[in-house]
Amino acid sequence: MTQYPHGPSLAISLAAIARNYTLLSRQLMSGRSGAVVKANAYGLGVAQIAPALLAAGCRDFFVATLEEGIYVRKILSTESVPSTVYVFHGARKGESKDFLAHNLIPVLNDRMQIACWNHAGPAALHIDTGMCRLGVTPEEAIAIAAEGQKFELLLSHLACADEPSHPKNNQQLAAFRAVIQHFPGTPASFANSSGIFLNSDYHYDIARPGCSLYGISPNTDLPNPMEHVATLSAPVLQYRTLTQDTDVGYSATARMKAGTVLATVELGYADGFHRALSNHAFGYAGDVRVPLIGRVSMDMVSVDVTQVPAHLHTPDMRIAFICEQQPVDVLAEAAGTIGYEIFTGMGNRVRRMYA
Amino acid sequence: MTQYPHGPSLAISLAAIARNYTLLSRQLMSGRSGAVVKANAYGLGVAQIAPALLAAGCRDFFVATLEEGIYVRKILSTESVPSTVYVFHGARKGESKDFLAHNLIPVLNDRMQIACWNHAGPAALHIDTGMCRLGVTPEEAIAIAAEGQKFELLLSHLACADEPSHPKNNQQLAAFRAVIQHFPGTPASFANSSGIFLNSDYHYDIARPGCSLYGISPNTDLPNPMEHVATLSAPVLQYRTLTQDTDVGYSATARMKAGTVLATVELGYADGFHRALSNHAFGYAGDVRVPLIGRVSMDMVSVDVTQVPAHLHTPDMRIAFICEQQPVDVLAEAAGTIGYEIFTGMGNRVRRMYA
Repeated sequence: MTQYPHGPSLAISLAAIARNYTLLSRQLMSGRSGAVVKANAYGLGVAQIAPALLAAGCRDFFVATLEEGIYVRKILSTESVPSTVYVFHGARKGESKDFLAHNLIPVLNDRMQIACWNHAGPAALHIDTGMCRLGVTPEEAIAIAAEGQKFELLLSHLACADEPSHPKNNQQLAAFRAVIQHFPGTPASFANSSGIFLNSDYHYDIARPGCSLYGISPNTDLPNPMEHVATLSAPVLQYRTLTQDTDVGYSATARMKAGTVLATVELGYADGFHRALSNHAFGYAGDVRVPLIGRVSMDMVSVDVTQVPAHLHTPDMRIAFICEQQPVDVLAEAAGTIGYEIFTGMGNRVRRMYA
Repeated sequence: MTQYPHGPSLAISLAAIARNYTLLSRQLMSGRSGAVVKANAYGLGVAQIAPALLAAGCRDFFVATLEEGIYVRKILSTESVPSTVYVFHGARKGESKDFLAHNLIPVLNDRMQIACWNHAGPAALHIDTGMCRLGVTPEEAIAIAAEGQKFELLLSHLACADEPSHPKNNQQLAAFRAVIQHFPGTPASFANSSGIFLNSDYHYDIARPGCSLYGISPNTDLPNPMEHVATLSAPVLQYRTLTQDTDVGYSATARMKAGTVLATVELGYADGFHRALSNHAFGYAGDVRVPLIGRVSMDMVSVDVTQVPAHLHTPDMRIAFICEQQPVDVLAEAAGTIGYEIFTGMGNRVRRMYA
């Protein structure tokens, strides 16, 4: 039985992440799957997740920054299996020696980064086929190929892969295909989580799933094929049975009737529980769905537990906000955002627990 | 001259926090001002801020949890000046010895907490006068007084103090006044930041400002009397001059004209830069206001820097998102939230810098 801490927690199944990795790998018709573990593995804890993915067969890890790369290398240094770590933001001027010292591969994004790197070691090239965010243009990439420059990997990133019918997917694919033929024999990486579920044309040599590993749906229209990974719950600080009709919380945005039983739960927006959830989201007390009442405070939120059997109104009761009954995507939609922002926003007071 | 790190940063003026503390103290017609430093001093860094407040004359610190209390005690243990640390969430069963060992004062919130604490040491009592969140009811408080129980401090919390004309302010004040007369000689604490600016009836013995110390406006209607404290900025990863009309970012939600100069900035929602800011907020490149273009990504956001002189388009340019020109309250409003959520949500990749 799980021993919960006195406070909010995110209980993370490393086994579920490993199974999600296996499911994604089996979906690929070509190449292999890497894993995106930037932003502390989307807030869930890269120190535990990177080794779990390595054990599941992953050999290619992607992070955003040099600092993240150094940390992942440190985490994986105790493992006997070799792995590759790519850094999306590339190498800045003066950082080459850090990349080499830590065996990190920069993803070079423009002519300036390529010039600063100056063939210091293995590097990847990012080609912008339609995100307009980072990467060289297709025309620049072709010119770079003509100069005879070599790369370990060619990358591009899909802008609309979660909408399979979006015309931009095909446009990006055509652009990527046209460019990479100028780099014969160089491996390519194109598909993010959603791209893996488009079709095999998008798979290439190394896929780069992120969200789907962590249980977020890779697709906005279809049932989520991924396994639930992380359960967010928090304990009740106090119960109160209203003896009269009463305003609840900041700015008195909710008014509850006499007889209502409220539970004040130890989870607030400082923990990453979005204030936008005020008054219109739900938690779960076991199998009972309990509505949020009033504004989310910095350290607390109130829920209506009137429908929860009274004998369960104890200090041991925890309210779950992300769980099998309410996946992260559902909570995110209630907050007007996506699961990625919910996970990456989880605060430092939320204890990560691993099983 | 400030040396910025290679990445997003929050530059925090401890001197401005100290001056804000002094301004609040002078505003008080009775009693003294404490400081609320829960949630890592609203995300800005309690390890630096608690000593700065102590040096400014603050002697009463308020945190949310036992863990936060232990940490603040550790931080202040090297200071020769004595101080008091109150823990809002109170003491759970079995935690008395931790509170006593670390010289922490629990704010007891209900009969169960009072019973568990069992006079183990000094404690405060929280009276709920209208928040309906934590605290005993006025009736319970009067009964507790009749039992002869003694407390170091009586607290209550205002629900609507940022709206000076809200009738709830007077109602809460009347309820608090009626209860505390049952505890003669016991100090009382009622005003949060906004309460300090209501009128002297709300001041009592110890005020508990939080947001205003950190530069957030204590009042939604009047000019902000507080000094700007924290500047959020991030470097440019890449510039791109569009050679044709181009979609920008995830889901192609923005389309920009040929000739536009975009800067991809190293700040995303994983850093606490809300995704809700997508397509309708601004940053500052020096004094030039630059609009956000497209969706905020996990690690990046694009801004239109066409109006910024071309000679400033260098890797050294930083885009500010919270600054004198754009206070945290303005950014928060663009994100549909309050400054408190912006500060407490700042991610771990955002380097806190102190001056």
